[in-house]
Amino acid sequence: MSKKTVDKLSIFALGGVGEIGKNMYVVQYANDIVVIDCGLKFPEEDMLGIDIVIPDISYLLENRDKVRGIIITHGHEDHIGGLSYVLRQLNVPIYATKLTLGLIETKLREAGLLGDTKRNLINSESELVLGCMTASFFKTNHSIPDSVGVCIATPEGNVVHTGDFKFDQTPVNEQYADIHRMAELGSKGVLALLSDSTNAERPGYTGSERSVGTEIEDVFRKAKQRVIIATFASNIHRIQQVIDAAEATKRKVTVIGRSMVNVVSIAGELGYLRIPEGMLIEPEEINKMAADRVVVLSTGSQGEPMSALTRMARSTHRKVDILPGDTVIIAATPIPGNERYVGRTVDELMRIGAHVIYGPGSITGVHVSGHGSQEELKLMLNLMKPKYFIPIHGEYRMLRQHAILAESVGIPKENIFVVDNGDVVEVLDGAARKGSKVTAGNILIDGLGVGDVGNIVLRDRKLLSQDGILVVVVTLSKQDGAILSGPDIISRGFVYVRESEGLLDEANRIVASTLKRLMSENVNEWASLKTHVKDALGRFLYEQTKRRPMILPIIMEV
Amino acid sequence: MSKKTVDKLSIFALGGVGEIGKNMYVVQYANDIVVIDCGLKFPEEDMLGIDIVIPDISYLLENRDKVRGIIITHGHEDHIGGLSYVLRQLNVPIYATKLTLGLIETKLREAGLLGDTKRNLINSESELVLGCMTASFFKTNHSIPDSVGVCIATPEGNVVHTGDFKFDQTPVNEQYADIHRMAELGSKGVLALLSDSTNAERPGYTGSERSVGTEIEDVFRKAKQRVIIATFASNIHRIQQVIDAAEATKRKVTVIGRSMVNVVSIAGELGYLRIPEGMLIEPEEINKMAADRVVVLSTGSQGEPMSALTRMARSTHRKVDILPGDTVIIAATPIPGNERYVGRTVDELMRIGAHVIYGPGSITGVHVSGHGSQEELKLMLNLMKPKYFIPIHGEYRMLRQHAILAESVGIPKENIFVVDNGDVVEVLDGAARKGSKVTAGNILIDGLGVGDVGNIVLRDRKLLSQDGILVVVVTLSKQDGAILSGPDIISRGFVYVRESEGLLDEANRIVASTLKRLMSENVNEWASLKTHVKDALGRFLYEQTKRRPMILPIIMEV
Repeated sequence: MSKKTVDKLSIFALGGVGEIGKNMYVVQYANDIVVIDCGLKFPEEDMLGIDIVIPDISYLLENRDKVRGIIITHGHEDHIGGLSYVLRQLNVPIYATKLTLGLIETKLREAGLLGDTKRNLINSESELVLGCMTASFFKTNHSIPDSVGVCIATPEGNVVHTGDFKFDQTPVNEQYADIHRMAELGSKGVLALLSDSTNAERPGYTGSERSVGTEIEDVFRKAKQRVIIATFASNIHRIQQVIDAAEATKRKVTVIGRSMVNVVSIAGELGYLRIPEGMLIEPEEINKMAADRVVVLSTGSQGEPMSALTRMARSTHRKVDILPGDTVIIAATPIPGNERYVGRTVDELMRIGAHVIYGPGSITGVHVSGHGSQEELKLMLNLMKPKYFIPIHGEYRMLRQHAILAESVGIPKENIFVVDNGDVVEVLDGAARKGSKVTAGNILIDGLGVGDVGNIVLRDRKLLSQDGILVVVVTLSKQDGAILSGPDIISRGFVYVRESEGLLDEANRIVASTLKRLMSENVNEWASLKTHVKDALGRFLYEQTKRRPMILPIIMEV
Repeated sequence: MSKKTVDKLSIFALGGVGEIGKNMYVVQYANDIVVIDCGLKFPEEDMLGIDIVIPDISYLLENRDKVRGIIITHGHEDHIGGLSYVLRQLNVPIYATKLTLGLIETKLREAGLLGDTKRNLINSESELVLGCMTASFFKTNHSIPDSVGVCIATPEGNVVHTGDFKFDQTPVNEQYADIHRMAELGSKGVLALLSDSTNAERPGYTGSERSVGTEIEDVFRKAKQRVIIATFASNIHRIQQVIDAAEATKRKVTVIGRSMVNVVSIAGELGYLRIPEGMLIEPEEINKMAADRVVVLSTGSQGEPMSALTRMARSTHRKVDILPGDTVIIAATPIPGNERYVGRTVDELMRIGAHVIYGPGSITGVHVSGHGSQEELKLMLNLMKPKYFIPIHGEYRMLRQHAILAESVGIPKENIFVVDNGDVVEVLDGAARKGSKVTAGNILIDGLGVGDVGNIVLRDRKLLSQDGILVVVVTLSKQDGAILSGPDIISRGFVYVRESEGLLDEANRIVASTLKRLMSENVNEWASLKTHVKDALGRFLYEQTKRRPMILPIIMEV
């Protein structure tokens, strides 16, 4: 008797729970898989030399025939940045709204994948049939226009994924959220809600974009010289506010930084930015203009060492100088880990004599988060009234806080699933339980290498970064094993060689005497020679310096 | 006619302005030098492998006969941590209050310097004659008892240094600030004030320690199981509050973590901690006790990977396990740069099932800063009414903010000196001006090495950490320059070697053919051979991988 597999619904994350970034969620029913988002994240501090991190998609590759497509909720890197890697291995249709698709296409063009990718434009009215499932959408407020949440209708019921969201009652450019459609979904019945936990630790409500616009205009009006404003390139609302404030205060805007120039151009073309005729000027033109007629819109709000703002602060930018008395606005919150970079950039700007507006948006008024705070998360939960709740987008502690919020609005504790990447929540006959685990993890990208840097390489980089390396080379005779040349010791990153000749000479003597002793004892397998040299030298160096450099013995034979 | 040097007053920092940490300030009149504080700081993220950083004291060494002593304001590492290095080179008397001296003596004992150091106990009533200058003191509130500010009476007038301070009207253990003495100093006349800028960016007042005590007791009372509380070992007020709250809720306290055990023992012996009989128990005893009778007082409030709390969170601590339902309190603010470590520790604790109280003290109530906020800084300025003001203790932006505060209370802009380490403020006949510059900088300590790691070594460590290293070895014949062995390539931290054999084989062929070509062209100086090999290999690897590992060519000759 053959065992028949029972069809059931599976929901899981391949990225984006227990971490911020590389978002990727999977909804599967029987032989149909729908993927939501395909992001990247930036490396953690122990991932030395790594450029970016994307999700491990082994599960999708093993089930490639079942994947009906990838739905993208909005155009931020942590939702689209993995596409150019994933599509190379898994060429499935992608679905995205107009601006999101515009931003994706730029990436695919750069990666040479534009022609081969099945790109599908959706809007909030679209309905997609994806195997046995149907996807529909609702508009949300976020720090980039054209953001949507997704409802996947499955044979077990509706699975709703909010994407990133907040509730802004006075948004920029009338990008209202589809609160009625959310309510309607809730009335019809939501089996499972996956909701954004980024700000689950923040009490209250996130401020409205409108108050930010007013504040920025106020700063522009009071500034007696140039205004330089740095924000995330992807924050198109903020960019619109800068343009509006410039118009109101009779200033012109010049755009600096590659990603900012890109985004302004795409969003402008697609109609997501209202840019008055003649508003944008070239960087070269600002020197001919009165200082109080100029706004410089720039990247670098995270104090990144190579960004335009940091280069301007260090007076190494080719086109724009910041002068004493200029006003610099940093309209962004530092991402955890970047505080010191931002602080350093502020220091440098102040040393030039600039007036700098920085710090928490709650104090400066020139920035608000794109993510809803606790009251908004509760509102979403109350609108959707889900039977089951899976907090997503966040470190573990944020997911936990979101779970506490869900309990507080009446979702039973046993119906809340705080999961790790790869943990499957299975639903059968309306009942959910934690199921098995699928492969999930980090794929590290270093230069052109995708996944070729793993724990061993990272461990070596860590070691090298702490105390450097000593290479010990010796040439032995093939015939009798005698030392023909060396031992020579070359070090890098260990000590300043010119001032440590004595130490290195002594190290050399220790290696030589160790080798001679071993030979006199007829130890001549290379592995054994190397181990003994490593041990003796390591011990000596630790005694002398309390450092443990990597020691690399190399034996040549002639 | 010989030129007579005019005697004048010089004030400058060798550490602690434009940075947080390694505080060291100098007041000099003619042939007398008084040093205030001698701290360390922890390395910045680009100081790879460095353990700690201390001030460059070249100026003091060049003027060693003039140095009358080092006054220490309080017992925190950023004020005492440099002593065991500095005293080795400059054995001058040190002056400190009882607890401060107790903490210093532990360090000197470990460094083997206790016997040789001239240690002088002071209290807030002391007056020290230091050459032509006289030092007196005033008690301040800070997060460690026995903190003082210093007034140096010089022939030009009084120079006041606040040390670290806040104003706490309801302090722990009745450690009141000498507000009357500060007022008296102000009435008599202060020539120059050097004041703590750490919290100059924070509006309002810093909360009182008393509210923290109440909150901690409340948490202890409500917790149904063990309470684990992590704080800075040096925060003796917080430790007292923990003991008081334990007493009030009939719990016993066990102390975990080497520095915490040290501090509790010294502060207890010296009478700075009131510890009821039988309150402290050994870690081994807690397993025999009811969970709701136990408090674990621990280090690790910064999420440091090797700290006691982190090990407990990872269930790798030898003595203490954290169980589901236990309450963990993190009573400290993350130092900038440590946010991710703290976050990770919170995640791990929550995964175990602990109830975790963490986040800004303003929300949790279980922590307040030891430094005064803007209103307190203004109060100090108004009490002292200095003619000249030099903000100290802080990054440049904090010094700037403090300068703005000083202007707001009426100090003329031209009388405020925002300086860098080494910038001398000179006072002659009551008039101050920015003078020359003395040597100031960072001395990096790596293991036993003091100052032997400089920019070249750090640059190499950085390079090694990013893309690793390739060592290329070849043995040439002394007679005709022919290749006798190799080229061999060994890599570390570059790629996972087992999966990159093709790449490394090809690299090998490129090195071999480069060498052969050079030899056929009669290029045989080693430097030239090495450069060509490096270039050819570097180019190939960058094309193939977009990585730039360090390449180390080694030529052996037989």
